[in-house]
Amino acid sequence: MPPKKFRSIKPEIRVLGIDDGAFVLRTKGTVTVVGVVYRGGCWFEGVMRTEITIDGLDATEKIAAMIESSPFYGEIRVVVLDGVTFAGFNVVDISELSRRVDLPVISVVREKPDLEKIRSALKNLPDFEIRWRAMENAGEIFEVESRKGENPVYMHIAGVLREDAEKIVKRTSTRSFIPEALRVAHIIASGLTRLREKI
Amino acid sequence: MPPKKFRSIKPEIRVLGIDDGAFVLRTKGTVTVVGVVYRGGCWFEGVMRTEITIDGLDATEKIAAMIESSPFYGEIRVVVLDGVTFAGFNVVDISELSRRVDLPVISVVREKPDLEKIRSALKNLPDFEIRWRAMENAGEIFEVESRKGENPVYMHIAGVLREDAEKIVKRTSTRSFIPEALRVAHIIASGLTRLREKI
Repeated sequence: MPPKKFRSIKPEIRVLGIDDGAFVLRTKGTVTVVGVVYRGGCWFEGVMRTEITIDGLDATEKIAAMIESSPFYGEIRVVVLDGVTFAGFNVVDISELSRRVDLPVISVVREKPDLEKIRSALKNLPDFEIRWRAMENAGEIFEVESRKGENPVYMHIAGVLREDAEKIVKRTSTRSFIPEALRVAHIIASGLTRLREKI
Repeated sequence: MPPKKFRSIKPEIRVLGIDDGAFVLRTKGTVTVVGVVYRGGCWFEGVMRTEITIDGLDATEKIAAMIESSPFYGEIRVVVLDGVTFAGFNVVDISELSRRVDLPVISVVREKPDLEKIRSALKNLPDFEIRWRAMENAGEIFEVESRKGENPVYMHIAGVLREDAEKIVKRTSTRSFIPEALRVAHIIASGLTRLREKI
């Protein structure tokens, strides 16, 4: 499937930002994943959530199902993830996710991923091949200067042209180095999980 | 304690909006209450949460404790509630809440509350006197044209002058008839509880 070519990227483009909550290392169980819908870099529109298994293999499937069952599916134009590893080493295959939900997917991180280090870590887990294939499917890493004259961020992309993905990241990073939907998804996911542990 | 007089109300004033999630009528248990911190009407800053008892008497205490234990306490300048009844008829005493957290409290609703109807409903519950006193402590209802030329909203206030409360509601209602922190707290509280029931 060729990447989607945007005719134009409106400032109010609907973006779904997805991040996972906190969890205690070396435990079993699930972690909350929160999706936040923004209109461009400014307006909060909605929230969704799912649970994925710590160090499991269900991140791609669970995130796809969360998007498809959301009332915002059909309005969202692009999905932005905080990296590709969720809940430990539950790797999201962004190519498969993009195909499944028929939307462009951009994974954004602040630090350039060290693939060799990730590869070594994945070797300590069962199903290394599946996890590593998902990493490889993320493809090339691109540097983006999300805010003019400041530190760049790094992105993997699927189902979208590099130039369109760059424009989307730049236009929606209104408050920080990352798209606003992703910044807020991070705050909600970590805020809610922190509080849950307190209860 | 005299109401706080604001020297100036900055557009980026930090507002905590609080709303409760959905629950099944005539059930027992607790309901999630979500607090959202915004800078003025534009920027999402944080989230907090607590649980209160359906038709219980703990809303004031639980909300005060949530605010006091939050990392944002000390930065928040005003608390905005979605009405004064949470989780059924768990009435927030906004005067007591304001005293306890030492912050102005504004309760905003879209429809003018029918006090006689509320009084009748409260009579069907235990501890009518406590609930009704909390309602009475909310004081006078003021009409505010939160968006110029459009339908007004109604507010109860505590620990704040009417003119300051009006300015705060007007400046922070950037996207709808109600302060943005409250609009987003509503979306998160109802979104998360709806999803939880699905799981």
